[in-house]
Amino acid sequence: MPRTVEVTELVLRDAHQSLLATRMTLEDMIPACEDIDKAGYWSVECWGGATYDSCIRFLNEDPWERLRTFRKLMPNSRLQMLLRGQNLLGYRHYEDTVVDRFVDKSAENGMDVFRVFDALNDPRNLKRAMEAVKRTGKWAEGTICYTTSPLHTVEKFVELAQRLQEMGAASICLKDMAALLRPEPAYQIVRGIKEKCGEAMPVHVHVHSTTGVTLVSLMKAIEAGADIVDTSISSLSLGPGHNPTEALVEMLQGTGYETKLDKDRLLKIKEHFAKVRPRYAEFESKIYGVETEIFDSQIPGGMISNMESQLRQQGAGDKLKEVLAEVPKVRKDAGYPPLVTPSSQIVGTQAVFNVLMGEYKAMTGEFADLMLGYYGEAIGDRDPKVVELAEKHAKKGPISERPADLLKPEWEALDAAAKALKGHDGSPEDTLTYAMFPQVAPKFFANRAEGPKDPCKSPATAAKPAAAKGADGSASITGPVTYDVSIGDKTHKVTVQPA
Amino acid sequence: MPRTVEVTELVLRDAHQSLLATRMTLEDMIPACEDIDKAGYWSVECWGGATYDSCIRFLNEDPWERLRTFRKLMPNSRLQMLLRGQNLLGYRHYEDTVVDRFVDKSAENGMDVFRVFDALNDPRNLKRAMEAVKRTGKWAEGTICYTTSPLHTVEKFVELAQRLQEMGAASICLKDMAALLRPEPAYQIVRGIKEKCGEAMPVHVHVHSTTGVTLVSLMKAIEAGADIVDTSISSLSLGPGHNPTEALVEMLQGTGYETKLDKDRLLKIKEHFAKVRPRYAEFESKIYGVETEIFDSQIPGGMISNMESQLRQQGAGDKLKEVLAEVPKVRKDAGYPPLVTPSSQIVGTQAVFNVLMGEYKAMTGEFADLMLGYYGEAIGDRDPKVVELAEKHAKKGPISERPADLLKPEWEALDAAAKALKGHDGSPEDTLTYAMFPQVAPKFFANRAEGPKDPCKSPATAAKPAAAKGADGSASITGPVTYDVSIGDKTHKVTVQPA
Repeated sequence: MPRTVEVTELVLRDAHQSLLATRMTLEDMIPACEDIDKAGYWSVECWGGATYDSCIRFLNEDPWERLRTFRKLMPNSRLQMLLRGQNLLGYRHYEDTVVDRFVDKSAENGMDVFRVFDALNDPRNLKRAMEAVKRTGKWAEGTICYTTSPLHTVEKFVELAQRLQEMGAASICLKDMAALLRPEPAYQIVRGIKEKCGEAMPVHVHVHSTTGVTLVSLMKAIEAGADIVDTSISSLSLGPGHNPTEALVEMLQGTGYETKLDKDRLLKIKEHFAKVRPRYAEFESKIYGVETEIFDSQIPGGMISNMESQLRQQGAGDKLKEVLAEVPKVRKDAGYPPLVTPSSQIVGTQAVFNVLMGEYKAMTGEFADLMLGYYGEAIGDRDPKVVELAEKHAKKGPISERPADLLKPEWEALDAAAKALKGHDGSPEDTLTYAMFPQVAPKFFANRAEGPKDPCKSPATAAKPAAAKGADGSASITGPVTYDVSIGDKTHKVTVQPA
Repeated sequence: MPRTVEVTELVLRDAHQSLLATRMTLEDMIPACEDIDKAGYWSVECWGGATYDSCIRFLNEDPWERLRTFRKLMPNSRLQMLLRGQNLLGYRHYEDTVVDRFVDKSAENGMDVFRVFDALNDPRNLKRAMEAVKRTGKWAEGTICYTTSPLHTVEKFVELAQRLQEMGAASICLKDMAALLRPEPAYQIVRGIKEKCGEAMPVHVHVHSTTGVTLVSLMKAIEAGADIVDTSISSLSLGPGHNPTEALVEMLQGTGYETKLDKDRLLKIKEHFAKVRPRYAEFESKIYGVETEIFDSQIPGGMISNMESQLRQQGAGDKLKEVLAEVPKVRKDAGYPPLVTPSSQIVGTQAVFNVLMGEYKAMTGEFADLMLGYYGEAIGDRDPKVVELAEKHAKKGPISERPADLLKPEWEALDAAAKALKGHDGSPEDTLTYAMFPQVAPKFFANRAEGPKDPCKSPATAAKPAAAKGADGSASITGPVTYDVSIGDKTHKVTVQPA
């Protein structure tokens, strides 16, 4: 008897987030929901920070209404979301009762599986959210963000899994955002988790396909005992997205493993998204095919293009190579955080600063916070000299407690501010929307009554402003320059001059 | 110590054949040759039927000159070609001395490794070519075309490998043209060959990536002992092409296997073809991403689009489903030939006939020949009733001998006819060009002096005539219709009417 391998379908969340700039409308998903619901998936990932953000920023869709629609249209499915631990779906730490309320409301509106992660892999940042999920009776999945560094050994990842188990994780997710998980470590880590956490602990593996090797990694993870793997229907797969669901099904034939997926349903889902995808051509990822350079640079493709555009804006397009060489140094100084939102932006921007101005002559507030422990603890020690510079810059000391312990209760204030906005419907869900995206929510509340907007026909998105750059695109900097640094929702104006 | 896995680079032959309609010019390959030569490949596949055809048909390039250029620019590399057994690079069986001459001249001009295959897997069709290769002292690789059917068991493939070994094969190639080779049979077949032919017999695995599973198959083949695998540089990989070379390299890290490839060279090769590829946009394959339906239909994507266009020309576009269902029946009646040029066209066209006219009411000469043994023997018995119909149609009996045994010496006649053509340069190479492609060679000889033509700028190729079809594209047939059937170089006019 082959062992059953369960599958999470990513097409409604991470697939279009990775391939189509998160622009897919609910309307384009609805016709596929019945087939998805009946195809035999273990869960359907359909909600997360970027889809929520995109709903209110670009689509004039209420993300809660989207969730309730999924709940109605997929009554047989576990709905799954990605939750950024104490950050929820936003870019800062929230006070614990806000975390509780968000989880409660998500569960109430239909969410079943909460994949809880933290960009630094600091378990303290996952704890409250996981407790909240467990109190609702829903599935709390503890997540390991996979990355590579001299400190990230198989043993360390397995230890983290044990910590998550102690915190009550119903399953452990090994999450590889940058397609860095090669077959051999995939095998070793999954085997290690099974051995240390017990064979009964479900292991769930999430990989992207950017480097082209990760379907092999899924095979090895399955051989090591992985219970659930994440894939995306073939017509919205590959490149910076994920491995195709149908390929996983076929790959397993004749091995000791099988999925329970209904191939006729998969074909219908495939055909639906094949038809829908061309509408979003203007949002297609510029990365296609395979990028294996990531293995050496350890810098995800999206981060490189961000840094390139930052450099070009400063007329320093010729400095990219130096910046790429600087990233690993900055990452080391910060204790080897995984490079994922928001740490990838924070580290990348600091690397740009270091190359343009000299090492740590200028520093973003976020990088200082990272060095001072305000995002939590990474795996390695932070460089004491850089910590000292960060203290000076931020005019505050380092912390060693859980960052959210510093926060005062904030729900009443958030609720009052949100309810004062035109169009707030009086619900806690609306207040949560405001809490996550305070800069975007007001406009969304005000315009919500106009109903969903199709991003594909919007003249505003069709005509993108060209990036500003110097005449020859590569002039070097001779005087002070003002620099716009965007991290999450915040934009900083930083004036710096060469060292 | 990890075991070394050797690699054949496909970018100069099968990659652009599969992805860019074989249109890449020598000029676009030359700048990459030094890096390819020094990257550490086991061999460089660079010549075959379609590239030869494309040279003289579209590019006004002398294929022999192309070969000599490769030889000069890649002095450290084994150059490899794909040779269709007794068909050489053409679409018919050639008499043995023509086979000998072709192999001699190829070796003389610089070819090192001859991958010899036959569409029906009939070893008799490989024998003479392999003997010829061995006589030149070059590498004769015996090939198994992989396919699936109730008769194609692991044991049968391994038996075929043993036959090829007896015929003196220096290595055995497991060749999967349609990306049907799943991981488990890949493992079983390679292991079987190693066990029956001896661990010392090199096993070489060639897969396409159309179904998305075959990098996993390569991993399993390597675990089973495969010595050499075929890949293509990432910027010209995936889809109906092949798995990316760089992904193979990275996939193996930390396993018990490694390649000897130089990653810096690979990056340069990648960048070169990434730059070149957009020039060929008009020739890009319409298939992209992943097509797993092939596993069930066993009909390669290219064959489906051929049949679709045949049907539309007859105003029978609505019959595709019936035709797809008919293909496996016709294939069974013919003894389960692999579906690869030319058997895929022969079987596909007959399936179209059967649906439009009734079963075997009309028959192409080629299908009759296939049923009567004139292409050789497939793995299964041919249906006696259909053989009888074929006899009537072709007005000749079935044969059981090797098809080429029926041929009379033909070199003198070919040489005389070729030399009578304007522009023939007096060389045996030119006569071979004429022998392979008698309809295209005359024009090529006449125009050769004009030098290479860039297909990307040709107005003739830019403006493709639209396929003729009925007003609504789906009218059913009510009277006799005339049907153009093209197989290889020959076009048949067949008038048929509904049964």
